[in-house]
Amino acid sequence: MTDDIEVEPATQTSPRHLAPGDVGLVTPRDFVYSQPFTFKSGQVIPGFTLRYETYGTLSATRDNVVLICHALSGDHHCAGWHSPDDRKPGWWNNLIGPGKAVDTGRFFVVCANVLGGCQGSTGPSSTNPETGRPYGVMFPFVTIRDMVRSQKLLLDHLGVVELQAVIGGSMGGMLALLFGIEYPRFVRRVVAMATTARESAQAIAFNEVGRQAIMQDPAWNHGDYPRDSGPRVGLAIARMMAHITYVSDASMDRKFGRRKKNSAHADAYTFEPQFEVEGYLRYQGQSFINRFDANSYLYITRALDQFDLAHAYGSLEGAFSHVEADTLVVGFTSDWLFPPEQNRALTLALLRAGKRASYAELATDLGHDSFLLESDELYTLIRGFLERDQPYVFDYSI
Amino acid sequence: MTDDIEVEPATQTSPRHLAPGDVGLVTPRDFVYSQPFTFKSGQVIPGFTLRYETYGTLSATRDNVVLICHALSGDHHCAGWHSPDDRKPGWWNNLIGPGKAVDTGRFFVVCANVLGGCQGSTGPSSTNPETGRPYGVMFPFVTIRDMVRSQKLLLDHLGVVELQAVIGGSMGGMLALLFGIEYPRFVRRVVAMATTARESAQAIAFNEVGRQAIMQDPAWNHGDYPRDSGPRVGLAIARMMAHITYVSDASMDRKFGRRKKNSAHADAYTFEPQFEVEGYLRYQGQSFINRFDANSYLYITRALDQFDLAHAYGSLEGAFSHVEADTLVVGFTSDWLFPPEQNRALTLALLRAGKRASYAELATDLGHDSFLLESDELYTLIRGFLERDQPYVFDYSI
Repeated sequence: MTDDIEVEPATQTSPRHLAPGDVGLVTPRDFVYSQPFTFKSGQVIPGFTLRYETYGTLSATRDNVVLICHALSGDHHCAGWHSPDDRKPGWWNNLIGPGKAVDTGRFFVVCANVLGGCQGSTGPSSTNPETGRPYGVMFPFVTIRDMVRSQKLLLDHLGVVELQAVIGGSMGGMLALLFGIEYPRFVRRVVAMATTARESAQAIAFNEVGRQAIMQDPAWNHGDYPRDSGPRVGLAIARMMAHITYVSDASMDRKFGRRKKNSAHADAYTFEPQFEVEGYLRYQGQSFINRFDANSYLYITRALDQFDLAHAYGSLEGAFSHVEADTLVVGFTSDWLFPPEQNRALTLALLRAGKRASYAELATDLGHDSFLLESDELYTLIRGFLERDQPYVFDYSI
Repeated sequence: MTDDIEVEPATQTSPRHLAPGDVGLVTPRDFVYSQPFTFKSGQVIPGFTLRYETYGTLSATRDNVVLICHALSGDHHCAGWHSPDDRKPGWWNNLIGPGKAVDTGRFFVVCANVLGGCQGSTGPSSTNPETGRPYGVMFPFVTIRDMVRSQKLLLDHLGVVELQAVIGGSMGGMLALLFGIEYPRFVRRVVAMATTARESAQAIAFNEVGRQAIMQDPAWNHGDYPRDSGPRVGLAIARMMAHITYVSDASMDRKFGRRKKNSAHADAYTFEPQFEVEGYLRYQGQSFINRFDANSYLYITRALDQFDLAHAYGSLEGAFSHVEADTLVVGFTSDWLFPPEQNRALTLALLRAGKRASYAELATDLGHDSFLLESDELYTLIRGFLERDQPYVFDYSI
């Protein structure tokens, strides 16, 4: 996968978490901010927690930091393993590690669960100190800017003086862009992938159907439900639908086509899953409800809908006018949620604003989630962008 | 809209149903078939009803007939008005009428609600004579072939000896194709639009999410619910999602973009509809549940999923081997549910099977529903196809 480390052939007896290039076992930490935090909406909470992970070593000058920003359903666990028994490593383990594109031999990598999330950071499922019960929909409305500001407080807490890069895909790309806009002197490089300056009507529409599925589930109960219960049916429906938008027609056809499940008689007439793709989708829905909070889903999708750089700063060029970072934008040809055009438009606006920006469009047929999947092309691109001090020449086709 | 009739300028006082080119007031009829009907699944019902409409006059030779086949959520009312007070005419009123592309001055046009439907034809919401209660999920599984066979019985009942054409879009296109396959000597022309020989994994996936939304709604109650009640929440969710797949990113952006509702403060933080597209989608969901039965939605989407000409006849060429009709296939560039490739593939298979087939790909940005929308290009195409006795030369770009 990389040129500059020797890879031992894997054997069945060597634990996966000790594989070369892996950061190994990691332990999440909590950053507790104990002062009032005012959201963009004007609402205030008395403090918050961000759960985060770090990989690599912070340099004495505290400036070798790469911040990773996760997408809607992601979390702080982007590399390594929590336990040798884990079924899977962190979600961007293929990108981050010693000798990998985001080289933890060189960089101190930080990733936090977003404010409003449900993987350890304060969000609607957290206890409201005023009531002793979960916030539910009493939690303040969260914006991408609130997520960015809270993560800046974490970085301040860690003593970080400069980010070598902030990197994210999808919603994470929105955070990365906004970091570059809000903290121009703090951010040297921005990598934004499969993202957008604002969602299209279609993307809002899909989010709205998901929210409706949750809010119309009687178990939602206006957001007031026990922590291990809630609108599981609605959340699963939302996730099943959203999952279709993360992949592509071509990748689903390659993976499943019209194949029937083993258990299904070829000509069976039933409303039970009959096609493999049906069983797969139900699995996606079911596994999601075991790890995600329905109110967080409402809050974070709303944050996505409301993100609109042009609206917030008068124009897209205006939004980028103070950026000092070099920006690399990556679009994926088969992404129909935040399609290449929207990524290209970001880059063009940066260039029009006189900023250093590069755009790469990767040909994949894996859809929006392409940024998460194994891609030597992507790793080479990111490695190069992090290594060089001069930006790429703008080029549509790498 | 047409060249060969004089159009009077509309005045506010002239009733819309008397507009030139309209078939005027129409009354649905019921065809009651009182013999046992065996479905493809082997299940039997003691008889069925098809609700249908006709426009124009059946010729003495009973061979001037055009059959119109509706899509998933359509019905038999494809032209004219049921009452002068109707808000809208039949769903294909722009295509069908005196002097229109499907000219009722020349053709006797027939359209029936499909078997398994809920607009007057026998389906899961009909009374099971054995129990005196709605069939619910005791209704036999319906296939496109069952729909076609039952409509052939209607045409036999009307004494029709030959179809000048069978015309349909989306699911209606599947019926049209199957009519040409199953009754080769009976069908002179097939017009199949925005359709497919079999759904892709993505289309099955969307249908499955819709079915899950319905079946997981507690009010579904395993299909057993009172006629005017049932899983309204689940059905609305299914419809909202499906509606997104019927249109396009571009058309939604043109129609709604990111515009906020009048009632919404520009920076309001709420889970209530804030963007116009959200209000529009909710309206789509709500109006659908007032006219459609949730069990019918399950049955008909399952019929769509199971439709697979290649599987049913060994190969697509095999399916078309006995066709005698001239076939016109129409794809729409912005249709991402049954995309142009799938329509083109149908045509190529017909040609490989040595049949007379033409393909037209219309450039629209309105998505799958393009076939329903005002298009002089489409009308000219259909009019020409119905008028000439020789098929078009195969041509990708008309």
